[in-house]
Amino acid sequence: MTTHGAPATAAVHPDITPLSFLLGRWAGEGEGSYPTIEPFAYGEEITVSHVGKPYLAYAQRTWSLEDGRPLHAETGYWRCPAPGRVELVVAHPNGIVEVGEGPLSDAVMEVTSTTVARTSSAKEVGGLVRRMQVAGDRLTYELDMAAVGVPLTGHLRATLHRVSSPPG
Amino acid sequence: MTTHGAPATAAVHPDITPLSFLLGRWAGEGEGSYPTIEPFAYGEEITVSHVGKPYLAYAQRTWSLEDGRPLHAETGYWRCPAPGRVELVVAHPNGIVEVGEGPLSDAVMEVTSTTVARTSSAKEVGGLVRRMQVAGDRLTYELDMAAVGVPLTGHLRATLHRVSSPPG
Repeated sequence: MTTHGAPATAAVHPDITPLSFLLGRWAGEGEGSYPTIEPFAYGEEITVSHVGKPYLAYAQRTWSLEDGRPLHAETGYWRCPAPGRVELVVAHPNGIVEVGEGPLSDAVMEVTSTTVARTSSAKEVGGLVRRMQVAGDRLTYELDMAAVGVPLTGHLRATLHRVSSPPG
Repeated sequence: MTTHGAPATAAVHPDITPLSFLLGRWAGEGEGSYPTIEPFAYGEEITVSHVGKPYLAYAQRTWSLEDGRPLHAETGYWRCPAPGRVELVVAHPNGIVEVGEGPLSDAVMEVTSTTVARTSSAKEVGGLVRRMQVAGDRLTYELDMAAVGVPLTGHLRATLHRVSSPPG
């Protein structure tokens, strides 16, 4: 890996200090359900990193606990535009992009989508709400989703633990 | 690295075979300009990978050729919903999400944004057009952008070379 553009020793940008509790690699398990599908259990890995600029890079992927096959993934960035506020931009491999915003207090945040847009071939997603909190090295989240005609409904909940810290 | 959810031996999903020319890690240099800024030169790395599902994962970052400091980054997914068509969903760390679509012929594609959305704190971006082509291990692209009141105007052009192939 080249270090150009990603100095391992960069300090966290002051703007995102309130989000630095997210930094690191996280692993854990979750449960998914939705009125249109069978409930399922998944493994998950989340990585959150920074390069000294005012955002955190975010990537996530999940796999079936039955056979290890890949399930979902998503990737994007967290921002902290003002004290007590968080912003999220995410791309999903099923052809969806998401813009979300909401309150951030200590290590608890709730991000409600302000835009969900999609490619021509993607299924309709009407809205997403993410509640996420970190206590020490334990991260929990719940995600509600409105999609394919179903109003906002609980879809995912998971618990992860920090398995490695950010460098520096 | 766990291999759960990302089997290194997965075959490329048939839907994205027309996009497999993008797979690998690419490195190179580019030039940026825009009516509102000074021209600049940048180094760039692009990685494109897959897990056997019908999308390619895409991540990019650039750095200043003057001092190595990180400049832009973006991350998302490529899809190929039908023969001769490509879809792109991307998140940008400046609070922008982009949905693009367009024609794909051999290893040449043009992706025009159908949606550009942003967080409350992000600058306005009105549209993006990406022209990208691969010939062997050489990738070139041009990106036009409409933003902050400027109509669609050439912004970036770069040439990269494949420095490693995808596994398998």
